[in-house]
Amino acid sequence: MVKRYLKVMPLDDVLALLAREFSCTPSTEIVPLEAASGKVTAHPIFGSYSVPEIHLAAMDGIAVVSEETKGASEQHPVTLQKVGRVNTGNVVPPGYDAVIMIEDVWETEGKFTIRKAAAPWQHIRPAGEDLAESEMVMPSRHLVRPHEIGALATYGITRLDIITVRIGLIPTGSELVPAGTRPAPGQVVESNTVMAKAMLETVGARCTRYPFVEDKPEKIRNAVAKVCNENDIVIVSAGSSAGTKDYTADVIADLGEVLVHGIATKPGKPAIIGRVENKPVIGLPGYPLSALTVIRELVLPFLQNYGLAVPDPVVVRAGITSAVAKEIGSDEFVLCTLGKIGERWTVSPLSKGAGVQMSAVRANAYIRVPRESEGFNAGDVVDARLMVPIREAENALLVTGSHDPVLDYLADLLRPAGFFLISTHVGSMGGIIALKKDECHAAPTHLLSPDGTYNTAYLRKYLPGTAIDLICVAGRQQGVVSKTGLSFADLPGRAFINRQQGSGTRMLLDHELKKAGIDPASMPGYEREVTTHIAAALAVKSGEAEAGLCVYSAAKALGLPFVPVSQERYELAIRREHADDPRIRALVKAIRSPEFKTILNRLGGYDTSETGLLRTVP
Amino acid sequence: MVKRYLKVMPLDDVLALLAREFSCTPSTEIVPLEAASGKVTAHPIFGSYSVPEIHLAAMDGIAVVSEETKGASEQHPVTLQKVGRVNTGNVVPPGYDAVIMIEDVWETEGKFTIRKAAAPWQHIRPAGEDLAESEMVMPSRHLVRPHEIGALATYGITRLDIITVRIGLIPTGSELVPAGTRPAPGQVVESNTVMAKAMLETVGARCTRYPFVEDKPEKIRNAVAKVCNENDIVIVSAGSSAGTKDYTADVIADLGEVLVHGIATKPGKPAIIGRVENKPVIGLPGYPLSALTVIRELVLPFLQNYGLAVPDPVVVRAGITSAVAKEIGSDEFVLCTLGKIGERWTVSPLSKGAGVQMSAVRANAYIRVPRESEGFNAGDVVDARLMVPIREAENALLVTGSHDPVLDYLADLLRPAGFFLISTHVGSMGGIIALKKDECHAAPTHLLSPDGTYNTAYLRKYLPGTAIDLICVAGRQQGVVSKTGLSFADLPGRAFINRQQGSGTRMLLDHELKKAGIDPASMPGYEREVTTHIAAALAVKSGEAEAGLCVYSAAKALGLPFVPVSQERYELAIRREHADDPRIRALVKAIRSPEFKTILNRLGGYDTSETGLLRTVP
Repeated sequence: MVKRYLKVMPLDDVLALLAREFSCTPSTEIVPLEAASGKVTAHPIFGSYSVPEIHLAAMDGIAVVSEETKGASEQHPVTLQKVGRVNTGNVVPPGYDAVIMIEDVWETEGKFTIRKAAAPWQHIRPAGEDLAESEMVMPSRHLVRPHEIGALATYGITRLDIITVRIGLIPTGSELVPAGTRPAPGQVVESNTVMAKAMLETVGARCTRYPFVEDKPEKIRNAVAKVCNENDIVIVSAGSSAGTKDYTADVIADLGEVLVHGIATKPGKPAIIGRVENKPVIGLPGYPLSALTVIRELVLPFLQNYGLAVPDPVVVRAGITSAVAKEIGSDEFVLCTLGKIGERWTVSPLSKGAGVQMSAVRANAYIRVPRESEGFNAGDVVDARLMVPIREAENALLVTGSHDPVLDYLADLLRPAGFFLISTHVGSMGGIIALKKDECHAAPTHLLSPDGTYNTAYLRKYLPGTAIDLICVAGRQQGVVSKTGLSFADLPGRAFINRQQGSGTRMLLDHELKKAGIDPASMPGYEREVTTHIAAALAVKSGEAEAGLCVYSAAKALGLPFVPVSQERYELAIRREHADDPRIRALVKAIRSPEFKTILNRLGGYDTSETGLLRTVP
Repeated sequence: MVKRYLKVMPLDDVLALLAREFSCTPSTEIVPLEAASGKVTAHPIFGSYSVPEIHLAAMDGIAVVSEETKGASEQHPVTLQKVGRVNTGNVVPPGYDAVIMIEDVWETEGKFTIRKAAAPWQHIRPAGEDLAESEMVMPSRHLVRPHEIGALATYGITRLDIITVRIGLIPTGSELVPAGTRPAPGQVVESNTVMAKAMLETVGARCTRYPFVEDKPEKIRNAVAKVCNENDIVIVSAGSSAGTKDYTADVIADLGEVLVHGIATKPGKPAIIGRVENKPVIGLPGYPLSALTVIRELVLPFLQNYGLAVPDPVVVRAGITSAVAKEIGSDEFVLCTLGKIGERWTVSPLSKGAGVQMSAVRANAYIRVPRESEGFNAGDVVDARLMVPIREAENALLVTGSHDPVLDYLADLLRPAGFFLISTHVGSMGGIIALKKDECHAAPTHLLSPDGTYNTAYLRKYLPGTAIDLICVAGRQQGVVSKTGLSFADLPGRAFINRQQGSGTRMLLDHELKKAGIDPASMPGYEREVTTHIAAALAVKSGEAEAGLCVYSAAKALGLPFVPVSQERYELAIRREHADDPRIRALVKAIRSPEFKTILNRLGGYDTSETGLLRTVP
């Protein structure tokens, strides 16, 4: 019943095997010059004529016979007999061998006088100066750069043979629906071949997405045979695992040979390398982040063997904020958020499942934890591979702590200024710890002290002696979200969805429960935690729970009743040493902008009377 | 008669002025999802439904009520009453709150027994785990990365509003012909707007090339007015200088206002910034490398103000091999060749005119010499900005010395192995000096000693005590190239084209002249130097000279008669310390390949009997 991976192999060995087992001959195609930028030449390109073909004036002036200018000086001006007027780019008439700039010529009644001799060939662009007839302009396997399109036009090249790799992508699965169709329960939008096509075409592959194939071995077999015939590489999406409905390996074995089943990576393990008709057939795992990893770490590097130019990620050395534990034997790839605190790079793993595509949207970097390693400790300096341009990572603004939907809107407001707000939802206490370790720029927090004040007491306790400022985002209504308008007093006996320990909302809940004399044990689901307000509201909407605690805007966004419990102060804590950091300045400016106030009012449940107010932790 | 630049301004000031004077509001357009990679979002994107919308099984197994599994252990197996079979991705049926993996279940006659309790919500992907309804997927001004196309498909996004900048490109000049037309004398292929379009579209601008406009002010004025109406930015190619036929500044002044005429850069000085209808109108210089510089250093950075993502070049610190002298006041941009000798980056300026587009094809890096600087001394460590992927620069193979057309073919042979041969033509002596300074990987040389031997005596003299190997490229016929079959004895009295001092061919010429008792003064043009065999042959073909000295293959390529003078030994000198460098190994392998011998025989004039032979300088 339970199938096993039979041929699990380390990633580097798989790449070596691919290079060894396949001839990796690219296809070629002809493209017009204007489509050649970023492509790789299939053959050397030669100039068919010289540029320029004939001597040209390099200045506005007169063409002269240099011999006749000999001896000219301030003391002994020479009036020339044989002269031709030329502008820059004009042909130098036959018989002339130099050009004198118009500024150095005195013209009287059609006669030209000079006061300085001309060196032979001065101010002349000789024939072939740029390119000589028959010269090689660029060799084969040359990555054509945008600026070279102009040079090729000059040399008379209007179309080019370029190399490509034809890749056929087969989406399999009876549960698939195309993008644009809202999936019914049990259906899934097919996205892996969409992603693969976008990633592979970036480096010049020519991808074809074939129609969806049901989970039936004979249908998959027919598709693979056909697609193999029409392409250089075949990628079968999903069905590559070892479950009861995973037919890809069997189909490949039937049509050809399975070389590898299972790659020692995480994510991405359930991948297959096979050979059919001497072409590579790759089985892609179904989970999106597994598929992403296999495309990035296996297929893209493999395409280099065909001559495509695959850029390496930029790498920076960064301190890692939390430990990454793993077992020896697999290469692990972890999506991360990366930013610069002062001059120091800091990188934080995003710990989510392989089905969470938003992790790849939120991530701006990733780390590779090598096969032979047991992982990293917090504080280790590691190689972070960039997923964004370096300038974007340098301008990342790391906001770590309590979650609120308005952080996304702040991110939106900061983009035109060139800053990239990345929020990580670890709760108010998590944010204060990050601030203490100087691993974030700002920590959103709403921690209620027994004396009824917000935030200051905790910051003073955890960061004694550190100068901290607090900027008020908004007063915020927290309340009970439910489908039926439950109030706080209704909570006992109701299935509850809780927030994680250390979050301000959790501390508020516990504070209010104590005040109201409600025993948490009376609330089934009290131990079930989610990390955002929206997730809590969604658990209620989906029926997982009857009630939860969240901010008004989250309940409103999902159209759910909301009964207020208390108003709190949602602030950003910032180390004063970073107050002059352009990122912080931009953040404060965005919070104080009229646009932000408009957004808060539109979302609802926010008191903006103190928005933008700066205070100091005493 | 002589117009002047009136408003020359430093580059940084021009960029600041552009940002200050214009609103820089981008255009937006709608693109289908599959065309969105590399584009920048115009608006935030929200999820319209949760992903998943309902709880899904994260494993193949059985859905259970976690409460019923309590107390199960190896000693106390529990047989479950209420169970649903699920595969990964299936909907968890209502009423169940955990999944147990099939491996941990014992099935007998339809009954399921477990030996371990299930934690609530284990192996379940809760609704909204990936994205909750109403959440922001990405803010505005977000550069969409290829892998995100998959996530957007999952979230139901099939088209996006993206930002762009509509740029209208106007080629002006009565001398222009389109690419694909061989220019008659005095005509020029229009390439600057072709190049600009390719460069600007790389970052997401939407460029339109308009029809050629003659050098007539009223026609240019009409074109600018029309194009301004249809675009966000107008670029007028050429006519931006201060010559008699340079109308761009006058036209802009007529329609609006000239803000800058002349930018303190080299190349690129004759550029114009104007304003018409509150839109920027940029006058582009006519010389291709000037135009390239203005696009790269001015227009691309300016587009960032509109929100387009313009990547910064990767910078490496490299030792510069020759001095760059300049006057204070202009930023100078110098195209270079860059490579790594051992672990040390070394960068060499390509000193050519602004009309030589091949310099931009040959260059893999450039340097910026700042305005306030007087230049660099040889050996200074400078910032080299990459024009190729870093891996390409790391695998550059620097071949510096005597020129031969076969070097281009060696470059072609090395590409599939992943190495990038860059040849710099400085003559044999120049190569030996580069080798002495350890600034190249190999130095092609053919230096004849009075005793009739080649190369060894010079290497011993200039690199005493350094272990040097010589690999033979070929025996090579040098001879007289002419249109009429002149022989060496015919040279006196003939217009001659010479090679540069320090080149082996020049030394061969002087040796042979001395032997034959011919006085160089009897050869007009003896002082006129070019740096390649092809350039010498071309000077003959174009009528600039009656005769020159070159290798047979160059004469053959241009279809000119060739009368042999002598056979020489063309070898590559290599420091033995680099013999194990993969680049050198690949080079030696390419020289010894049958393909290379075939090429030598096809080109003609090469004796391949010792091709690939390695010898040691005694």
